[in-house]
Amino acid sequence: MPGNQFGQALVLTSWGESHGTAIGGVLDGIPPGIQLNTSLIQQALNRRRPGQSIHVTPRLESDEIEILSGLYDGKTLGTPLSFMIKNSNHDSAAYDSYKNIFRPGHADYGYWKKYQHYDHRGGGRASARETAVRVAAGAIAQQVLTTILDVAPLVRAALVQLGTCTISYDHWDWQEREKNPFFCPDAQAVPVWETYLTKVKDQGRSVGAIIEVCVQNIPAGLGEPVYDKLDADLAKALMSINAVKGVEIGDGFACVSASQGYDEMGNDDELFLSNRAGGIIGGISTGQDIICRLALKPTSSTRQPRQTITKDGHVVTTEIHGRHDPCVGIRAVPIAEAMVNLVLADHLLRWRGQCGEYPILVK
Amino acid sequence: MPGNQFGQALVLTSWGESHGTAIGGVLDGIPPGIQLNTSLIQQALNRRRPGQSIHVTPRLESDEIEILSGLYDGKTLGTPLSFMIKNSNHDSAAYDSYKNIFRPGHADYGYWKKYQHYDHRGGGRASARETAVRVAAGAIAQQVLTTILDVAPLVRAALVQLGTCTISYDHWDWQEREKNPFFCPDAQAVPVWETYLTKVKDQGRSVGAIIEVCVQNIPAGLGEPVYDKLDADLAKALMSINAVKGVEIGDGFACVSASQGYDEMGNDDELFLSNRAGGIIGGISTGQDIICRLALKPTSSTRQPRQTITKDGHVVTTEIHGRHDPCVGIRAVPIAEAMVNLVLADHLLRWRGQCGEYPILVK
Amino acid sequence: MPGNQFGQALVLTSWGESHGTAIGGVLDGIPPGIQLNTSLIQQALNRRRPGQSIHVTPRLESDEIEILSGLYDGKTLGTPLSFMIKNSNHDSAAYDSYKNIFRPGHADYGYWKKYQHYDHRGGGRASARETAVRVAAGAIAQQVLTTILDVAPLVRAALVQLGTCTISYDHWDWQEREKNPFFCPDAQAVPVWETYLTKVKDQGRSVGAIIEVCVQNIPAGLGEPVYDKLDADLAKALMSINAVKGVEIGDGFACVSASQGYDEMGNDDELFLSNRAGGIIGGISTGQDIICRLALKPTSSTRQPRQTITKDGHVVTTEIHGRHDPCVGIRAVPIAEAMVNLVLADHLLRWRGQCGEYPILVK
Amino acid sequence: MPGNQFGQALVLTSWGESHGTAIGGVLDGIPPGIQLNTSLIQQALNRRRPGQSIHVTPRLESDEIEILSGLYDGKTLGTPLSFMIKNSNHDSAAYDSYKNIFRPGHADYGYWKKYQHYDHRGGGRASARETAVRVAAGAIAQQVLTTILDVAPLVRAALVQLGTCTISYDHWDWQEREKNPFFCPDAQAVPVWETYLTKVKDQGRSVGAIIEVCVQNIPAGLGEPVYDKLDADLAKALMSINAVKGVEIGDGFACVSASQGYDEMGNDDELFLSNRAGGIIGGISTGQDIICRLALKPTSSTRQPRQTITKDGHVVTTEIHGRHDPCVGIRAVPIAEAMVNLVLADHLLRWRGQCGEYPILVK
Repeated sequence: MPGNQFGQALVLTSWGESHGTAIGGVLDGIPPGIQLNTSLIQQALNRRRPGQSIHVTPRLESDEIEILSGLYDGKTLGTPLSFMIKNSNHDSAAYDSYKNIFRPGHADYGYWKKYQHYDHRGGGRASARETAVRVAAGAIAQQVLTTILDVAPLVRAALVQLGTCTISYDHWDWQEREKNPFFCPDAQAVPVWETYLTKVKDQGRSVGAIIEVCVQNIPAGLGEPVYDKLDADLAKALMSINAVKGVEIGDGFACVSASQGYDEMGNDDELFLSNRAGGIIGGISTGQDIICRLALKPTSSTRQPRQTITKDGHVVTTEIHGRHDPCVGIRAVPIAEAMVNLVLADHLLRWRGQCGEYPILVK
Repeated sequence: MPGNQFGQALVLTSWGESHGTAIGGVLDGIPPGIQLNTSLIQQALNRRRPGQSIHVTPRLESDEIEILSGLYDGKTLGTPLSFMIKNSNHDSAAYDSYKNIFRPGHADYGYWKKYQHYDHRGGGRASARETAVRVAAGAIAQQVLTTILDVAPLVRAALVQLGTCTISYDHWDWQEREKNPFFCPDAQAVPVWETYLTKVKDQGRSVGAIIEVCVQNIPAGLGEPVYDKLDADLAKALMSINAVKGVEIGDGFACVSASQGYDEMGNDDELFLSNRAGGIIGGISTGQDIICRLALKPTSSTRQPRQTITKDGHVVTTEIHGRHDPCVGIRAVPIAEAMVNLVLADHLLRWRGQCGEYPILVK
Repeated sequence: MPGNQFGQALVLTSWGESHGTAIGGVLDGIPPGIQLNTSLIQQALNRRRPGQSIHVTPRLESDEIEILSGLYDGKTLGTPLSFMIKNSNHDSAAYDSYKNIFRPGHADYGYWKKYQHYDHRGGGRASARETAVRVAAGAIAQQVLTTILDVAPLVRAALVQLGTCTISYDHWDWQEREKNPFFCPDAQAVPVWETYLTKVKDQGRSVGAIIEVCVQNIPAGLGEPVYDKLDADLAKALMSINAVKGVEIGDGFACVSASQGYDEMGNDDELFLSNRAGGIIGGISTGQDIICRLALKPTSSTRQPRQTITKDGHVVTTEIHGRHDPCVGIRAVPIAEAMVNLVLADHLLRWRGQCGEYPILVK
Repeated sequence: MPGNQFGQALVLTSWGESHGTAIGGVLDGIPPGIQLNTSLIQQALNRRRPGQSIHVTPRLESDEIEILSGLYDGKTLGTPLSFMIKNSNHDSAAYDSYKNIFRPGHADYGYWKKYQHYDHRGGGRASARETAVRVAAGAIAQQVLTTILDVAPLVRAALVQLGTCTISYDHWDWQEREKNPFFCPDAQAVPVWETYLTKVKDQGRSVGAIIEVCVQNIPAGLGEPVYDKLDADLAKALMSINAVKGVEIGDGFACVSASQGYDEMGNDDELFLSNRAGGIIGGISTGQDIICRLALKPTSSTRQPRQTITKDGHVVTTEIHGRHDPCVGIRAVPIAEAMVNLVLADHLLRWRGQCGEYPILVK
């Protein structure tokens, strides 16, 4: 009933406040006997970790994962895998000045109305720190998918827009994505983005971003009609990431003014002649690449002075100091990948339960 | 586990194929003692019903709801409310020619891979006919909200884009919306849309649409961190509607290139000085109007000849005849409203369970 | 959240009041492609139906099932199977005199405290009429088990005690069970029970019963640690049947004073040398026969005058007339079988989801 | 889907193997703002802890709880409360000789068939060590009940039978229960039990037990028709405790041969004239004391030599050495209380969600 769980067959329970002792999760439903590469989990966490470049918050967290159960001799037991990440660097004192005000753009006011309390020390559950739990779980889900399916699915995301700067799809290169601090797949865009974001940061401002997630090698048939459609669950998963304000699948909003809404089918080299649908029709995967995009708003915490109110209702002006990202969208790339892996693995196990062994990939 | 349920505290179970005996639903969790106006449910169904204007499919369904349980002397019992809508006009013979082909843009192929079967007679569960169940349930959810909350919430949707035609927000008039067959809130746009859609239809084409949903009078504090955020659940609910390819909240995708990501707070006439967030921050309602938009693709079934394959893998060319809407987005307006009502009522009951009595509205 | 659902992978949603239009259910999660024998469902319903002998209530219900969805050409679609049973013989007027009193032994008072309403016309949801829904669903679950598993599991129940009359286990004969109106497996006990129950009925009294359920041919490995243990889910399923006050597995309460709590293992003809555990250890099936027993209280509604209070708190004396069973335990035999089939099928699908294909039977 | 969760509105997720790093749980759905007395949680754990008397296993565990989230300044936040108990004393080497055999009476064989693996080092998830998680969560649930309800409910359990030794209900004294190592409420029985159990232990044997749980001050109206009946959920909760083989409510199995199945109602000092039902009718609490009993089998691990098989199918004879309780039923007393508290708190929050504020107690 409370909203700290994700998935139905592969269930993630997440816990922890950003300035408490630790954060962590329990991932239940992992098939037994999977050889789990824990260093892949740590690598995924490292990709999300702050302090990796001058373009993200310098808040230093080692984000070292401790696995507390569910694993023996490197193999999953089929029992809940519990993990914990200690909060090593929570400088709560820095937040003292926000104790009685609602920070604009943050969840403070809503939490206060809901719980008669909010965590001024960096947001508590509302903090993006919680997303480390998602990334760890997603890295396990990814290994579940790879173990069960004959052909390993490939879930990859990249930043396709940073504020007003876009990429050229013609330059798309997955290799390039790993070489710059933006997860940008367009080498020519990188220097432009560098200059742009440096300026934004120097001005004490922030910008939004669009992330595109692409999934390859996924079997046709994944997804449950009619409410747990694969795209519906992806939309929920991605919209639940901090700062996300929009999600689209395939052609998305552009489809509205398009002259055609369907993809023709052939039978030679390609089963489908186009991919307007983004790999999902009627809520079920078609075996084509799954394409989705998510829009993230500019970081709320910036040095710009802003008007807000105190708990007592007095109007005050405040600036949000602290160690913040000029663009939270950048670090959301591995988070988006993690959520997609969780959705896919969950649906694969659900499908296997109802319909039997997993299906053949579309050639 | 299967995906035919929606909600956690107010749970809708949906059943029925488009060309079977009937469709229906069971709505469980309705508080006891609610005076239920069944004619409001029928009115909601009538708004969604085909055959209402020349701009939607002439398929005639009376869509008369029969309530089978959960109600006594006009009041809810607190027990499951079961309802059924008979399929009066299912002309299955018309679909015989599609028995062995996968209709492009439809769920046929995915269902076939998933279930080794698909319903060529209009899609079965994948048909938009299932959405009548949502509309009936949404009309009940709306009465749950109105009964529990001191101030009745107002969930209204309108079409803001039809293919390439947009509205002017300056002309927005909720009254106007009820006077034209497009649920269009801009009186000046209506004649343009009439001409445009008539032409589209005459050419055997179809177009997409954007729907905007606006919720007024909703208390602050609704929504569950961190996965069942109110916007995450809205995204899932709306993305699960047939033909939807994108969902956004507040400024949505436009926020990416905006210079500011937050709304300042005041204390005089308005608690917030703007509503970029669309009424939801950190997944929790702020008491401001909730604003979301959804993009629907052009109807897949048109008279345009198209290439597809048979179950045996042979390439064929087909045209989809039958009684189809040139723009499925139009009839999706009451469906979107229904889904939003379901999400809000579900979250209100969840909140009441964990935190006690419902909260005070933001003045 | 409300309690009208059973199962997690094979989910039964039940609806309907005893004196409303109809009762029914939606069974979701049925694997696709199962050839469903609907006459087996009707046969199961007939076994539970009242009016079959002088020893059960003469209330006549045809209990004819109508399947409304989920089935096409005799095969399951993988979509929700909705079914309905009309209430043909609800003589509500007979209950008018109970409108303002709480019938002792019935759920009236609890419903009134919970919902500020109770259904004096035969109990509404609290009526045993709801169990027809369970029997129909159980008959489908049984076919799911038989289709998925190589060796068809056999779930059979019998009455082993009727009031103070017991059976001799040495005389156990499953064939005999079908030949008498008590589901009694001991031919020698039948005439004794006939005389006994006739006398009880003539005296306007009622008696309780013990039912034993035996499951053969079930694979080892079924059940989920640690809360959804197979025996825990069976206990819940059986305790949820009207009038049940106790459930035990294997040696049950007798194990307390036994000198040994375990079953030794061998390897020749028998994997286990005894079956004290009743086929379940640590919540997981061992492949031995699953044995459970449930105790049902004497029918509350009898002609005996009894003291109770009105809604206003006045003490009154009442007799419960109407068409009641002198022993509700008899008709609970097919209900217990149905619940066990539902639990087993649900756990089989859950297992298959997490661990892959179903397992090998213990030889 | 996996079975490591309990509850719907107050959800406990349990994790940890008996010989892993730690065990723990996440309790979600706790209302915000509850002043949580953590020393009461530790006290509950201490009652369950081994090594408290010569009659229970000397395995020493400090069982110190660490609360990792959900609490700030002594008050609950409304966010998940995560807790951990380290496994300080896991002497795995002692179990090496059982590496390849299935210990009779233990879950080894079932786990092996399910997961192709079992934890020979004390059972892993199947170990009673997991019940420490339940006790901690139950102590929190108890405080939730006490905070929400005007009159604090009182959940207490006692041992009413130890092997062949029973108590006299006439001597029942709750004070006495705290003074002896058996949780026995009958002072006169204690010396008899001392002698009896010492002899059992000296002989290398074990015995079973019956626990009775009594709940006072619980409002009428708790429980959900028709599958999540209060007694059905209690039956599941209690049957899920290690070694439990039977559960009964009120008169339980004795009701079968009773001459009357109902409780009359009055209106003077007592609302009900008797309590055969054990406080629950139709699955809903009546406001009377809730009475349930559970039967536990004799500890499986004793020094008695026994026959079993190895993974390879060879018959061997083994004795189970180690630090075991001669009667596991004793330490199950606080576990039973914990499970009942969890069920009651869960149902109270569910009720509050659907029906509004909590109800009035029966005077």
